[in-house]
Amino acid sequence: MAEHAHDGPPHGLFISFEGIDGSGKSTQTKLLKDRLPDAVLTREPGGSAGAEEIRALLLTGDPDRWSAETEILLFTAARRDHLEKTIRPALAAGKTVICDRFADSTRVYQGATRGALRGAVDTLHDVMIGREPDLTFIIDMDPAVALSRGLARGSGEDRFEDMGLAFQETLRHGFLALAKANPDRCVLIDGNRDPVAVAAEITVHVADRMPAT
Amino acid sequence: MAEHAHDGPPHGLFISFEGIDGSGKSTQTKLLKDRLPDAVLTREPGGSAGAEEIRALLLTGDPDRWSAETEILLFTAARRDHLEKTIRPALAAGKTVICDRFADSTRVYQGATRGALRGAVDTLHDVMIGREPDLTFIIDMDPAVALSRGLARGSGEDRFEDMGLAFQETLRHGFLALAKANPDRCVLIDGNRDPVAVAAEITVHVADRMPAT
Ligand SMILES: Nc1ncnc2c1ncn2[C@@H]1O[C@H](COP(=O)(O)OP(=O)(O)OP(=O)(O)O)[C@@H](O)[C@H]1O
Ligand SMILES: Nc1ncnc2c1ncn2[C@@H]1O[C@H](COP(=O)(O)OP(=O)(O)OP(=O)(O)O)[C@@H](O)[C@H]1O
Ligand SMILES: [Mg+2]
Ligand SMILES: [Mg+2]
Repeated sequence: MAEHAHDGPPHGLFISFEGIDGSGKSTQTKLLKDRLPDAVLTREPGGSAGAEEIRALLLTGDPDRWSAETEILLFTAARRDHLEKTIRPALAAGKTVICDRFADSTRVYQGATRGALRGAVDTLHDVMIGREPDLTFIIDMDPAVALSRGLARGSGEDRFEDMGLAFQETLRHGFLALAKANPDRCVLIDGNRDPVAVAAEITVHVADRMPAT
Repeated sequence: MAEHAHDGPPHGLFISFEGIDGSGKSTQTKLLKDRLPDAVLTREPGGSAGAEEIRALLLTGDPDRWSAETEILLFTAARRDHLEKTIRPALAAGKTVICDRFADSTRVYQGATRGALRGAVDTLHDVMIGREPDLTFIIDMDPAVALSRGLARGSGEDRFEDMGLAFQETLRHGFLALAKANPDRCVLIDGNRDPVAVAAEITVHVADRMPAT
């Protein structure tokens, strides 16, 4: 196993899970947390007290409530708070952070809905976030299957899921393109299998990247 | 009086009021609105339904609730919503817009508290707002006098005002520097006078800039 690459005190591993709605991100983050009880499990949008308040502004109410531009600003504000208050302190304490969605979700959702804004998304990320996960699992699968799973739920927070199958196809291709463009940190996972089989594959990748202790 | 400079349908005049706490911005915006009953009177942060919700996140609660970076993102999100939902539609309908604070306040307050973030403030403005008022009144006055006026109020929304006289001095110099750097749109007004005298001077400047009808 490789020596810890950078100087200074050991930092925890920052792991994100990405993929279309219903692909099993939340399921897999929980299964990974079961295997790593000291890890911090968190999610976006949200993950800190302030970010959860911004989440409530973003995910409830009329779908046309915010323009794409305002939405990007609110997502970035929530992410900044989440990074400061939850993610960075945990990593600095040497803990693994498992995050259900991160900046890649903003890139893909905005790219799918308002492609002209991808430049603005990237600028905001560079200026205000400036941090990628060390390891990103992109759970890939047939949107029709994922959507049929998702329909069983229903939490009121369904602005994005309401947009249908063709939209999920577009998202899928966005996530695949991100995985291809960022091979160092992204691992593509076939989500069309039993959750336990998916979790086993993820565990191997995580063990590979864990800093030696 | 000059002809309307640009082609297309006539747009209303976008006027902002800036200055330290208690300098008389709200008083003067109301007096100007009394003279221009068709004008739209609005304020920042806030000025649209969504922006008012973001305002509530910004101005209430623990002063350390948000970092300077998150605060900038929330102010910009509120401003974007305000611009889209209130300011632009009014200007497009040919109305004068009178705005109590705008982007200059963010520049000056952040410059005073976290100078290293002025670059980020400017980048966010360029990418997400990209619009200045046509005319900005910067009401200048002695902070000691302004602060003594302000103390008579007390609305719960006092995170900034709590920071004292030295801070207001820093803000004053920030506003003066902005006025100097933007002579085309900024007019410096001596606020150390009777409100009616201040209003009379403002009215002359507004009449000068009004599109000929
Ligand atoms: N591998 C799997 N096989 C079958 N069903 C699964 C699998 N993984 C998750 N599910 C079920 O599918 C539904 C969606 O899973 P989950 O909530 O984990 O997806 P998600 O990617 O987090 O979705 P969202 O993007 O909407 O948050 C849940 O009901 C879950 O129990
Ligand atoms: N020219 C003036 N002379 C004396 N008192 C004034 C004058 N203008 C305003 N005031 C009083 O001073 C107080 C502050 O004025 P105002 O609320 O208009 O300031 P402001 O710039 O909007 O402050 P803030 O930045 O805190 O919103 C009020 O009580 C107001 O009635
Ligand atoms: Mg989920
Ligand atoms: Mg006021």
